[in-house]
Amino acid sequence: MTSLAGRTTTEPELETLLAAAAEAGAELAGLAPDRRAEALRRVADAVDSAAGELVPLASKETNLPMTPRLVAELGRATFQLRLLAEAVAEGGYLEVTLDSPDPDWPAGGRADMRRLLWPVGPVLNFAASNFPFAFSVAGGDTAAALAAGCPVVVKANPGHPELSALTASTVSVALADAGLPAGSFAVVYGEETGRAALLDTRIKAGAFTGSTAVGRTLFDLASSRPEPIPFYAEMGSVNPVFVTESAAASREAEIADGYLGSYTLGMGQFCTKPGLLFVPERAAESITARLVTALSERAAARLLNDRIAAGYQRVHSALAGHPAMSVLHAGTDSAEGPAPALLGTTAADLLAHHDELTAECFGPTSVLVRYSSTDELLACARSFPGELTATVHGEGDDEPAARLVAELSTRVGRVLWNGWPTGVAVTYAMQHGGPYPATTAPLHTSVGTTSLRRFLRPVAYQNMPQHLLPEVLRDGNPFGVPRRLDGVLTPPR
Amino acid sequence: MTSLAGRTTTEPELETLLAAAAEAGAELAGLAPDRRAEALRRVADAVDSAAGELVPLASKETNLPMTPRLVAELGRATFQLRLLAEAVAEGGYLEVTLDSPDPDWPAGGRADMRRLLWPVGPVLNFAASNFPFAFSVAGGDTAAALAAGCPVVVKANPGHPELSALTASTVSVALADAGLPAGSFAVVYGEETGRAALLDTRIKAGAFTGSTAVGRTLFDLASSRPEPIPFYAEMGSVNPVFVTESAAASREAEIADGYLGSYTLGMGQFCTKPGLLFVPERAAESITARLVTALSERAAARLLNDRIAAGYQRVHSALAGHPAMSVLHAGTDSAEGPAPALLGTTAADLLAHHDELTAECFGPTSVLVRYSSTDELLACARSFPGELTATVHGEGDDEPAARLVAELSTRVGRVLWNGWPTGVAVTYAMQHGGPYPATTAPLHTSVGTTSLRRFLRPVAYQNMPQHLLPEVLRDGNPFGVPRRLDGVLTPPR
Repeated sequence: MTSLAGRTTTEPELETLLAAAAEAGAELAGLAPDRRAEALRRVADAVDSAAGELVPLASKETNLPMTPRLVAELGRATFQLRLLAEAVAEGGYLEVTLDSPDPDWPAGGRADMRRLLWPVGPVLNFAASNFPFAFSVAGGDTAAALAAGCPVVVKANPGHPELSALTASTVSVALADAGLPAGSFAVVYGEETGRAALLDTRIKAGAFTGSTAVGRTLFDLASSRPEPIPFYAEMGSVNPVFVTESAAASREAEIADGYLGSYTLGMGQFCTKPGLLFVPERAAESITARLVTALSERAAARLLNDRIAAGYQRVHSALAGHPAMSVLHAGTDSAEGPAPALLGTTAADLLAHHDELTAECFGPTSVLVRYSSTDELLACARSFPGELTATVHGEGDDEPAARLVAELSTRVGRVLWNGWPTGVAVTYAMQHGGPYPATTAPLHTSVGTTSLRRFLRPVAYQNMPQHLLPEVLRDGNPFGVPRRLDGVLTPPR
Repeated sequence: MTSLAGRTTTEPELETLLAAAAEAGAELAGLAPDRRAEALRRVADAVDSAAGELVPLASKETNLPMTPRLVAELGRATFQLRLLAEAVAEGGYLEVTLDSPDPDWPAGGRADMRRLLWPVGPVLNFAASNFPFAFSVAGGDTAAALAAGCPVVVKANPGHPELSALTASTVSVALADAGLPAGSFAVVYGEETGRAALLDTRIKAGAFTGSTAVGRTLFDLASSRPEPIPFYAEMGSVNPVFVTESAAASREAEIADGYLGSYTLGMGQFCTKPGLLFVPERAAESITARLVTALSERAAARLLNDRIAAGYQRVHSALAGHPAMSVLHAGTDSAEGPAPALLGTTAADLLAHHDELTAECFGPTSVLVRYSSTDELLACARSFPGELTATVHGEGDDEPAARLVAELSTRVGRVLWNGWPTGVAVTYAMQHGGPYPATTAPLHTSVGTTSLRRFLRPVAYQNMPQHLLPEVLRDGNPFGVPRRLDGVLTPPR
């Protein structure tokens, strides 16, 4: 195989792909729900079938272990495609709403009005480095956009170009087998190509998973277009974990072990890594001792790629070198990469130097924060503007825990109780998002069945004859989807 | 009464209001659905009760007739509050979704996960000039934000400051009577105050109804904040109407009369005014003759205010003076204001000079466009990037009509059949929005029960004990809201 590192899609290639995507839009939008679901299942089957080739290639390009990690991640990606296929077939995501004509409806009467959600058009997805399957070429954003009925162009992550190309051909063949138009899906390469595509008028929405700096730059670009478009960047998060006095008193060892396992999982290269653990002063010493003992047996390992490794070293050094931070365990780095490390500070220092001490360190470093009072703990909770997750460890009718949960509900996407934020299940109720700077689009999620909503816009038809309506809106509910009829929600047939 | 024209809210006043709004957020968000619904109904009752004072004041400040217009508009605004109260009480808008724990759920098992939509926080609404009730202080954006559980700050429209103040005190008293916190609602005055509020970190979303220029400026401001926020600007639209050959052949007079009535309604000061009527060449002459005859009897009238009148004259003159445009009926303007006018051009010219000839002229001017073939008509339909509405007049199984409907579905928010776009009913299925430049947020609507979605963001709770969950998510469904349980939609109790 020719190396694709540094490959860039040319301008004429991009033009051809975008023209094909725009051309494919109407046909994709008009597909019956069962046909669109079938296409998603075929992609899932094809990716599963190609696992023997895809997984080793992913491991080679990302330094992630094949088992259990990459095998499981591929399974997660294909499960995601199948779950979204179910959501498409069920049809609730369309939010079909029908008003029957009523001349007596207040404020002037009402016509026959029928509303559904319609695909926004071609979507540009920027693939992530840290999930070469689940948040990359055949990952969640691609699955959601295709499920919504949008053509997809993926800007490949430079960290795994060969895997991207092989995944792309696997997906393309499966979609063609399912009878979808050729422009339904494409992958492009190169930073400049990604920017050019984002600025192209044929692209109607964008999605991204990665750093805050890059996510914000792309959001600004999308917002500054003559026609601004929605841009869903899922970015940084430090996922603070708050341990109450009573939880520390009753489950100190369990909490320490769970924390260590969560923040070192995958060498800390998750957007849901707990970057901060808040513990009461009186428990800090023994928790630290337990963590340091366990950390002394943790080996160094390679990070995803040189760019990620350099970024980790830079942020880690800045955190470790901050006057208000102490190094609780330095770890013994090897030539291959870093060993897990633990830093420490106080709640008072964190409040005084919030932005510096809560910088996201993408890799195996986390910060233990000692607090001396509930008020201080709550002040810390309030100091985070927006996070993907926050976790509370509490006990029974723990009053500080209740106040923490209420406070965190207003500033994060997912609030956990007595658990750990790594591991984002693909379900109906999952919310993977949050207020800025966790994302640029706090109203949405990039994981779970409601992730489709990012790529759908409402369209209403007024007094339209049956044969001109989208089939799903016609009398008799031909696809048996859930509907709101004159205000009353009716489940699927 | 002291004149409020030119009034500006001072910086200390704004600071006090924003602090109160931020403070009120948690209490408002936590209100039980029936209490929030009751508050909306009380506002509606209070506005209805004050109609005797509000309507004459509105007429004085906007030059709009008290009857039928302003009386009907006030009724529309209060109906809107009551319909949203029903939506709040029903609870479907919360999108409650519950996953039960399942260790065998694919890709790693699943926890107890419970998701709902949560208010985004304080909302800043910029009131419109042309609907002093329905899109102003107590209008749709205020109703939707309060219904969603968000504190609201309204930036008053400078066109009706006294009405804004009187409406504000009416709303404030009603909300206080309903037991809502003082920071739930406020009105501010002045352009600079509006900008300052929009840039304040306590404001979490913004809404606007008005011109494309101002809407885009405010959207850019909201997007450029250190924490960008969603900004829902409902802006310009020319609402093209396409008449097929067969419709023109069978209903020429009816179409001409309907068009004239729609574009001159309220002196053309509606965002849904049909700004362009596409008619087949062979029918153009007789339709024009009928329109000109009717127009000769239309009197001049005052527009909303001097700023609107000046804008109308500027855009009207530019359109009328364009070399590709002919003046079909000039109208006899009076000292009070303009008389309805009709301009004309060809589809070929429109395609050649699209942006100049499709500029929105806010006031009683519209453009009759003659087309010579179905291909030309479809090309015109494709030339509009985004509109609130588009209308097709067709007959039976009219093939061009089917192609028009399909094309327009991809670029407008509401597609009408054999009707007129003015008159936006407040219903469950209404969509009042569309791709840019109709709005800055194509995924949303500013009218109808789904308008709440703009001010809600998802939050998920993982393994949370019952007593720490928002009540609506608890076992037993205490408020009887519709829920999705393990993927299955269940209607309200």
